[in-house]
Amino acid sequence: MKKTHRGFTTVSLFYIRMKSFASDNYAGVLPEIMDALNSANEAHARSYGADDITTRTSKLFKEVFGADVQVHFVFNGTGANVLSMGAATQSFNSVLCAETSHMYWDESTAPETFTGCRFIPVTINEHGKLTPEQIKQRLIRKGDMHFAQPKIVSVTQTTEYATVYTLDELRQIGQLTKENGLYYHMDGARFFNAVSALGCSIKEMSTDVGLDLLSLGGTKAGMMFGEAVVVFNPELAKYMHYKHKQSMQLASKTRFIAAQFEALLSNDLWKKYTTHANSMATLLSDSIKDIPGVNLTKPVSANGVFAIHPESWNEPMWQHYPYYVWDEHTNEVRLMCSWDTTEEEVRAFAEAMKKLSIS
Amino acid sequence: MKKTHRGFTTVSLFYIRMKSFASDNYAGVLPEIMDALNSANEAHARSYGADDITTRTSKLFKEVFGADVQVHFVFNGTGANVLSMGAATQSFNSVLCAETSHMYWDESTAPETFTGCRFIPVTINEHGKLTPEQIKQRLIRKGDMHFAQPKIVSVTQTTEYATVYTLDELRQIGQLTKENGLYYHMDGARFFNAVSALGCSIKEMSTDVGLDLLSLGGTKAGMMFGEAVVVFNPELAKYMHYKHKQSMQLASKTRFIAAQFEALLSNDLWKKYTTHANSMATLLSDSIKDIPGVNLTKPVSANGVFAIHPESWNEPMWQHYPYYVWDEHTNEVRLMCSWDTTEEEVRAFAEAMKKLSIS
Amino acid sequence: MKKTHRGFTTVSLFYIRMKSFASDNYAGVLPEIMDALNSANEAHARSYGADDITTRTSKLFKEVFGADVQVHFVFNGTGANVLSMGAATQSFNSVLCAETSHMYWDESTAPETFTGCRFIPVTINEHGKLTPEQIKQRLIRKGDMHFAQPKIVSVTQTTEYATVYTLDELRQIGQLTKENGLYYHMDGARFFNAVSALGCSIKEMSTDVGLDLLSLGGTKAGMMFGEAVVVFNPELAKYMHYKHKQSMQLASKTRFIAAQFEALLSNDLWKKYTTHANSMATLLSDSIKDIPGVNLTKPVSANGVFAIHPESWNEPMWQHYPYYVWDEHTNEVRLMCSWDTTEEEVRAFAEAMKKLSIS
Amino acid sequence: MKKTHRGFTTVSLFYIRMKSFASDNYAGVLPEIMDALNSANEAHARSYGADDITTRTSKLFKEVFGADVQVHFVFNGTGANVLSMGAATQSFNSVLCAETSHMYWDESTAPETFTGCRFIPVTINEHGKLTPEQIKQRLIRKGDMHFAQPKIVSVTQTTEYATVYTLDELRQIGQLTKENGLYYHMDGARFFNAVSALGCSIKEMSTDVGLDLLSLGGTKAGMMFGEAVVVFNPELAKYMHYKHKQSMQLASKTRFIAAQFEALLSNDLWKKYTTHANSMATLLSDSIKDIPGVNLTKPVSANGVFAIHPESWNEPMWQHYPYYVWDEHTNEVRLMCSWDTTEEEVRAFAEAMKKLSIS
Repeated sequence: MKKTHRGFTTVSLFYIRMKSFASDNYAGVLPEIMDALNSANEAHARSYGADDITTRTSKLFKEVFGADVQVHFVFNGTGANVLSMGAATQSFNSVLCAETSHMYWDESTAPETFTGCRFIPVTINEHGKLTPEQIKQRLIRKGDMHFAQPKIVSVTQTTEYATVYTLDELRQIGQLTKENGLYYHMDGARFFNAVSALGCSIKEMSTDVGLDLLSLGGTKAGMMFGEAVVVFNPELAKYMHYKHKQSMQLASKTRFIAAQFEALLSNDLWKKYTTHANSMATLLSDSIKDIPGVNLTKPVSANGVFAIHPESWNEPMWQHYPYYVWDEHTNEVRLMCSWDTTEEEVRAFAEAMKKLSIS
Repeated sequence: MKKTHRGFTTVSLFYIRMKSFASDNYAGVLPEIMDALNSANEAHARSYGADDITTRTSKLFKEVFGADVQVHFVFNGTGANVLSMGAATQSFNSVLCAETSHMYWDESTAPETFTGCRFIPVTINEHGKLTPEQIKQRLIRKGDMHFAQPKIVSVTQTTEYATVYTLDELRQIGQLTKENGLYYHMDGARFFNAVSALGCSIKEMSTDVGLDLLSLGGTKAGMMFGEAVVVFNPELAKYMHYKHKQSMQLASKTRFIAAQFEALLSNDLWKKYTTHANSMATLLSDSIKDIPGVNLTKPVSANGVFAIHPESWNEPMWQHYPYYVWDEHTNEVRLMCSWDTTEEEVRAFAEAMKKLSIS
Repeated sequence: MKKTHRGFTTVSLFYIRMKSFASDNYAGVLPEIMDALNSANEAHARSYGADDITTRTSKLFKEVFGADVQVHFVFNGTGANVLSMGAATQSFNSVLCAETSHMYWDESTAPETFTGCRFIPVTINEHGKLTPEQIKQRLIRKGDMHFAQPKIVSVTQTTEYATVYTLDELRQIGQLTKENGLYYHMDGARFFNAVSALGCSIKEMSTDVGLDLLSLGGTKAGMMFGEAVVVFNPELAKYMHYKHKQSMQLASKTRFIAAQFEALLSNDLWKKYTTHANSMATLLSDSIKDIPGVNLTKPVSANGVFAIHPESWNEPMWQHYPYYVWDEHTNEVRLMCSWDTTEEEVRAFAEAMKKLSIS
Repeated sequence: MKKTHRGFTTVSLFYIRMKSFASDNYAGVLPEIMDALNSANEAHARSYGADDITTRTSKLFKEVFGADVQVHFVFNGTGANVLSMGAATQSFNSVLCAETSHMYWDESTAPETFTGCRFIPVTINEHGKLTPEQIKQRLIRKGDMHFAQPKIVSVTQTTEYATVYTLDELRQIGQLTKENGLYYHMDGARFFNAVSALGCSIKEMSTDVGLDLLSLGGTKAGMMFGEAVVVFNPELAKYMHYKHKQSMQLASKTRFIAAQFEALLSNDLWKKYTTHANSMATLLSDSIKDIPGVNLTKPVSANGVFAIHPESWNEPMWQHYPYYVWDEHTNEVRLMCSWDTTEEEVRAFAEAMKKLSIS
C-alpha cells in the first residue's frame, strides 16, 4: 500500500526553490511554451473556447491522433479525470481503476462527489499494471440493480510506478472493454513520456488501442497549466460540452491553454523533452543500481525510478536532493526526472548516495 | 470475493411462495406486529413523526438502549445506512467498511451519490470480521487534502457471514475510533440476532461498546417495513432531522413504523423470535455438518449457515429448499433461517441433502 | 408566497389523536387495505419485488392505465418524485416545476442532492396552475453549455391549492413538452382525488395526456405507506430499476406495498373514498362561504378548501378542529378533507365558525 | 428575464480577433502580469501551493484585506463560487442569490451537483441589486426539516448590470446575515472595478462590510487565468483545503496563479486598469446617451453600459463592434469595456451609432 509521499516535508533545511527529484510538476514551463503564451496575448479573442487558437489546435489534435477526436481543454489532471468519468457514466455505475491510481488515492473524493459513482480498486501486477484477468474478476452481477454496475476501465499510462504498458497490453484491455460494453479511459498525466518510452506514435498508443477517452497531461509535460480530455468515441461527444462547463473546467480565456498544446504538439516538441526526461531516469537508475544498499523495485523505462535504500540516508540526501518516500514501511522512494533535469544533477545525486553507502 | 447471491433464480420449478432458506427477508410479519399495526390504525395522528406512538416509542428506545439516544425511523436498510453515513461525514471524507459489507456490495451507489464520500473496502479476517489491525492500516495521510479523509468505521453485526463480533472485539474497535477522531457505526440489519447470540443486553452491544450510530434492522426481525437510525453521539443529533427528510426516508404516517418497533421492543419480543431463528441455524449446521461432501465454512452462532457442497446438489435441493450461492467458484452457499423456520423444515432439508450425498 | 403550514402546532390544547382538517395524511388506513395487508402476510415471498403479488399488481397497472407501463413501488412521495427526476435527467439538466410545488418547498434538497440538477420555480396562474405560456418563457438558451438545460416539466395534480387541471390543460402542456424534447411528469400525490373530481378514467388523465412519468400517491389515498412511479415512456424504463434501488426506495418486502395498491385499484376502491373526500370539501366550502368574514380563495373541486378568515378565529377553532395556516400574512388557511371525514364533522366545523363570526 | 447573451454569434462577418465590447474576458493579459509569469518561471517550486511565491502572495492578501484572511487560488469564477458555496453549506441548505446572478444563470448546474444545495433566485431592485427586504422574505420556516434551510446570502459586486452596491448597502446586508446566522458571500468577478468605482479601499469593501467569503476575480481584471477564494471567517477556514482539492480547483503549479495576483495587488496595479476601464464606460455612456433611439437602462459607474436601441442597428454595428444582446425582447444590450479599451474605439463606436440613428 502506498503509505505517503509527503516524506521530506519535515526536513528543516529544505530549500524551496531547489531543483529536486520530488516530482515532475516541480519543474517550470518549457521555453517554447512561454513563447507561445506571450504570442497568444494579442488583441481580443472570444472566450470559452470560441477563439481561433482553440479552433486551430482542435484541428491539430485530429491530425496527431489520426481520428475525428473531440478535444476539451481543462485546467488540471483531477478535472480531466473527473470530467471523463462524468461523461461516460450514469450515477449507478462503477469505475474499475488500479488500486494505486491517482484517481483512487490523490483526488480527494472529487470523482464520487461529481459523478455519484463508485470507484473500485483493482489489484495490479508486479509492474504496477492492470491485467485483463484482474479486470474480469470484477465483471460480475451484470444487470443486478443492487450492485454498482461497472461502466469504465481506467488505466494509467505511465503507471504510478513509472512503468509503461506495452501496446499489446493496452490493446488486450481495449478488447476486453469492447466485449463487455465498457468504456476505456486512459489517465495520461504522463502520456507523452510513455509514447517516447515505447517509441511509437501518439495515434498508436491511443486511437489504435481502442481508447474511448483520454486525460492528456500537459502540466507535467512542461505546460504552465492545462490538460485535455480527448474523446474518441462519438457517442460520448454529444453531451460533453455541458459536462465540461458543469465540472468547473471551462476556461474563460481558453486560448491560453490551447496555445500551449499547439506548441507542445508542433514539431514533436513533446518528444524532445520527454525523451530527455526518460533518459535522465535511465541514467539515474544505471548510476545507483549497483550501489550497495540500493535495490531498484521496478523496471525503468519512463521518467521515474523506484528504489529501496536505508531510511537513514533520507535526511542527508534531502539536504540537496529532495524526493518522496513512496512506502514508509520499506523506505521505497520515488525519484522523478523532469524536462529540466541535467546529467550533472543525476551524477551528483548518485555520488552523494555512494558516499552514504560507504560511510 | 462474493460473486453472486442470485443463483437459484433460474430454477424453473421454483415456487414463489414456498418457504425457503434463501433470506430472512422472505419471511412475513410477526403476528404480534400485525396486531400492533391493526391497533395503530385508529383515528387521526399527526404526520412525519409528530404523533404520540412515535413519541412513546422514542422514549422506549432511550430505556432499551440505556442512554439519551435520538431515534429516526426510516424505511429500509439502505436508507438507514446512507442516512447514517450522510449524518457523520463531509463530502471529502471516506468510510471504512468491510470488503464484504452490504453497503459496499448491495446498495448500488446510494452511499456515494447521497454523501459524495468514498467507501473503502477493508480486508476481513477468516470469520468475516474487521480487526483493529486492518483498520489501522487505512488510517494514513491524515490532514492530506489530496486523500479522502477517513471519518467513519462501519461494522456489520451480525456479519455478512452470520458470524458475531464479541463484545470485546466491538469495544476494541470502538476504542480505536475514539483515539483517531472517527465515528463508529454499526450496520445492525440483524442486530437482534446478534444480541440473542451473545446473550447480552441491547445496551451492552451498542451504548457500551461506544457506538455513535446504529442502523437498527426491523424488517429482517419480522417487521413489515421499517428500520431505525439510533444516534448515540449528541454532536451528530443536531442536524439529523434535516438529513432524515433529505434522504427520502421520512414516512408520512410514521406511526406505523413506530408501532412495529414498540411491539418488537416490548416484552423482549425480539428475543423470542431471534433466539428461535438462531437455534434453527444451529440445528441446521449440526444436522448437515457430518454429511459427506459438506463443509461448514464459518462458525454458526446466529441465524445463518455457510457451507460448501457439490454444485450438482443445487438444482435438486432448490426444487424444495431455495437458497443462495454465495460464491459460485467454490459453491459456498448461504442458508438463512428466519423467525418462522420450523424444526421440521430443517430436518427435511438435512434429509434431502443426505440422500444426495449417498446417491 | 407560502409562508408556513405549521401554524397550529403551538396550540396548547391540541389533542394529538383528534380528527382534524390539517392534512389528509393524518388519516389512517382504509379498512379494505388493512385486510389486504393481513392477507398478504402468509408464508414466504421473494424479496425486492420478485414476489407474485408484485407481479400481479404490475399487470393490474397495465390494465388500469391502458398502456404497457412499468411500475416501481416506492416508500413515499419525495422518493417517488426524486426517483422520477433522476430517471429522466442528466446532472446538467434543470426541471421546471410550479413555484408552489411540493418538490420545490417541502422535500428539503433531496431533488438536488440526488440528481445534481437545478429546480426552476415557474410562475403559476391564479388557480395555482402552470400554463404553457409561463413554461415557454423558461425554454431559452437551448444548447448553451453555461445554462442548465431544461429536461422535465412537472405538474402537480391536484395542485397544492387543491385545484384540478382540466384534461385539456394537461394535454396542452403535454403537447408543449413533446415539441420541445422535454419529459412530462405528474406529481400525483392526490392523483385519485383529481380523477374523481374530473369524472374521467385513470387512463384519460395520464396515458392520454402524454405523461412520461407519474408519481402516484398511495398514502394520502388511504394506504399505510407506499407510492408508485409509473413509467409511460419506454426509453425511460431501461435503467429505471437501477435508479430505483439507488434512490433507497426499493422495499425488501415489496409485496406489502403491492398488495395495498392491488386493493386500491380493484373494484374502484380509490373512487369510492376520493369521491367521498371531495364531496366533504364541497360541503365544507358550501357551509362556510357565506359566513361573514370568510372568503374562499380558490375554486373547490377536490378535497381541499382554501379560505381567508380573521386570524383571531384560529386559536378557538384549533381547540377542536386543527388546520394549517397557508399564508400567515393574510391568514389564508387550508382545510383538508380525508377519506374518513364525516358530514357531522364538517357541519360542526361550520357551526363553530359561525359562532365566532357572530360573537 | 435575461434571455440570451449570445446574440451576435450568428453574424457572418464577425472577425474573431477583433476588439469588441462583448466581454471583458475577451481581452488579454496585462503586460505587467505577463512579466510576472515570465519571472515566476525559474527553477523548481513545490507544487499545490507549497511554493514561496504562494506563501508570499498569501501574506500580501492579509495586508491588502487588512485581516487574517485565508486565500485559496483557483482556476475560474465558477470554481471560486462553487468552492465558496461548498465550504459554507451542508447539503440540506439553500443559497439566496440574485435572480440574475452568474451562479444562477451561467454556471450550468455546477453549484447543485457539487454542493447538493438549492439555489434560490431572489428578486432584485431596479438597479439590479438585492435588498434586505427581499432577502428577509426568504428567511422562513427556520428549523423546518421539510424546507431547504437558507445558509448563505450571495451578492455580486459589481452586479450583472454593472451597477455597484454602496458600502452602506453592503453593510446592511452583512448585518442581516449576522442577525440570522447566515454566511455572507460576494461574487467579485469584477471586484476591482467596484472598488475603483466606489473610490474606497479593498478592505472597506470586503472585511469592513462583514464578508465571510469572497470570490475574487482575476481573469476579468487582466490575468491569464486564476481567481481566489478569500476566507474571512475562521470557522470556514478549517476544512477549506480539503474542499479546495475536492472541487478540482487546486493547481499543480500554483505559483503561476499566485504570481499574477502578486503583480495585480502590488503598486495598486488593479486600480490603474480598472479605473481606466470604468472611465471608458462612462465615456461610452456619455457619448451615446443623447443619440435619438438610445435609452440607457442602468446608471453607469463601473465598466459596463446597458442600453436599449433599435434591433435593426445590431447587425451593422456588429460588423465592427461586437456586443451581446442581454434581453432579446427589448433589445437591451450590454457594452463592456476592458483594460485595453481605447478612447478612440469608444468614440468610433458612438459615431457609428449616430450614423445609424440619422439614416
